[in-house]
Amino acid sequence: MIIREGTDAVESGMVCPAPMLDEGHVLLAHGSGGTLTHRLIKQVLLPRFRNELLEPLHDGAVFFAAGRRFAFSTDSYVIDPIFFPGGDIGSLAVNGTVNDLAMCGADPLYLSAALIVEEGFPMAQLERIVESMERAAREAGVRIVTGDTKVVDRGKVDKIFINTSGIGLVDYGAEIDPRKARPGDKIILSGTMAEHGMAIMSVREGLEFDTELRSDTAPLNNLVAQMLRTSREIHVLRDPTRGGVATALNEIAESARLGIEIREESLPLSEPVQGACEILGFDPLYVANEGKLLAVVEAEHAEDVLRTMRRHPMGRDAAIIGEVVADHGGVVLMRTTIGSSRIVDMLSGEQLPRIC
Amino acid sequence: MIIREGTDAVESGMVCPAPMLDEGHVLLAHGSGGTLTHRLIKQVLLPRFRNELLEPLHDGAVFFAAGRRFAFSTDSYVIDPIFFPGGDIGSLAVNGTVNDLAMCGADPLYLSAALIVEEGFPMAQLERIVESMERAAREAGVRIVTGDTKVVDRGKVDKIFINTSGIGLVDYGAEIDPRKARPGDKIILSGTMAEHGMAIMSVREGLEFDTELRSDTAPLNNLVAQMLRTSREIHVLRDPTRGGVATALNEIAESARLGIEIREESLPLSEPVQGACEILGFDPLYVANEGKLLAVVEAEHAEDVLRTMRRHPMGRDAAIIGEVVADHGGVVLMRTTIGSSRIVDMLSGEQLPRIC
Repeated sequence: MIIREGTDAVESGMVCPAPMLDEGHVLLAHGSGGTLTHRLIKQVLLPRFRNELLEPLHDGAVFFAAGRRFAFSTDSYVIDPIFFPGGDIGSLAVNGTVNDLAMCGADPLYLSAALIVEEGFPMAQLERIVESMERAAREAGVRIVTGDTKVVDRGKVDKIFINTSGIGLVDYGAEIDPRKARPGDKIILSGTMAEHGMAIMSVREGLEFDTELRSDTAPLNNLVAQMLRTSREIHVLRDPTRGGVATALNEIAESARLGIEIREESLPLSEPVQGACEILGFDPLYVANEGKLLAVVEAEHAEDVLRTMRRHPMGRDAAIIGEVVADHGGVVLMRTTIGSSRIVDMLSGEQLPRIC
Repeated sequence: MIIREGTDAVESGMVCPAPMLDEGHVLLAHGSGGTLTHRLIKQVLLPRFRNELLEPLHDGAVFFAAGRRFAFSTDSYVIDPIFFPGGDIGSLAVNGTVNDLAMCGADPLYLSAALIVEEGFPMAQLERIVESMERAAREAGVRIVTGDTKVVDRGKVDKIFINTSGIGLVDYGAEIDPRKARPGDKIILSGTMAEHGMAIMSVREGLEFDTELRSDTAPLNNLVAQMLRTSREIHVLRDPTRGGVATALNEIAESARLGIEIREESLPLSEPVQGACEILGFDPLYVANEGKLLAVVEAEHAEDVLRTMRRHPMGRDAAIIGEVVADHGGVVLMRTTIGSSRIVDMLSGEQLPRIC
């Protein structure tokens, strides 16, 4: 693997130092998905919006209507660059909300698409993005049924931001909830880590590797459907996007008030991504994924679920990476390859702004 | 009425000339809600997203699930300034989506809130906006159940943009659809025009009038519920936001392939707003409203519906402003106070960027 062009890649790869807090202003790290995002949500948003549907801090809300359970989720996409190897802001926006619904155990049905476009944005790029959204929706089996377009004067938004919201039916009979992890449950990761983040990073820094780093953006709803047909004893599902696998595991540990132990050698990681992470100084545990999921599964069902996942194109490299433990509640520990243990914290600071 | 401070208000009040089309780029007018927005939707978005739910070009999509009809709507708010007399971007974002759902004949249930915030944005303003959203949600009787927060580096977004999406149950037994207008139907406007747009304009231009111009931002779902309990023969509902009453009427005429005739002297308009429009050179028919609706109602039911509306705080100044006619399909005609007729076109160009 060779870096053909390099700027100050290693420096930019460093996680920003724990931000010097001017608590009076919003910082980039408030959008990182890590510690400051959680603080913002808990201190500013939750106390005002408090209600029992919002409380679980899931990827979406689950509510009853007409005697059925629905999931409802929203996400804004502000990624830079808007086109990248493996996808673009359009496919990312569709897959992202499809996946958030799937993580609620829902079958995604309908999506909305709201575009905020900068004056002067090339129409051909807009068309390409819209086509990409439609293609992604078709692949995921959802329909984009309502939308909105705003145009903002030049310099007031960076090219294009897209919000997608989505509705799904929670119909598989499983009770997916981050609070439902139990000691002994196995933790499965559906495939190799850090591909989305490193693909974005390589484009931003103008790096070229022998093997192109491609985003893993993909819809996970079909994989989830297969998993839930295999076992209803899947307790938690989460897609490790902003903040990566480490942050998602911390969220699960915190919600369940239980500990998590993972084994370093079991973490699926492709060689090119591992190499890029080493060169750029990133810990793949903290780098965003857009086509991977974490599943917390009752121990006796874990091997069955794993087999199902490995038969699916989105889960070929799935692996059991650890388990839920009764000790050290809220803390994620990793047994390293050299046999020691280290605490895997939630992402603090901002690693990669505008990664999704 | 006195303008105490004035810049080049009259000039800025002019509608931009029909844009010199560089068809290869997105123009501000593509977000106006008028002609170019429609062209963008019809030429770029619809051909790709084509499906029967999106087709009616309603304020939201109506779909069946679990044997019931649901409405689903989305809107992004990019208004500048974010605080204005009568409201702020937070209350506007909640009321706007509540109203879009109400215009589908739905009872709004749940909202999502997705914030895109500029790095360095004052935390105190964020708290004020979030509180305003919560208050607006409480007033409308909806709950904000899921959300997302992104932070974008300084200069890549202007302060704060908010997307709200919403879900409602269509339960009143009426069939609201812009294609359902019939010749002879009466057109009711729920109150005085142009208040939101002129309030924003007065802040932007630093104008002060004797009577403060306040945005009319308000939830219309309760008014709609009362109306639909009075008559199921309400055929169309639409809130005349971007592009104003003129643009909304044109959309209805176009969808129904029928003509519309309105009478100038019947149009509700407050004296301060009329004065401000005259001074600044705005036609109130094209100025945005955020707490008003247009209803197309079966003639024999119109007086009943009107009475119901006038008893409601949001409909005190409601008036029958015209009717649907079989002639001049797709065209809106206005009988002026001096007895002549003029065509009321859809807004072309962009009158007030970032009005919502």
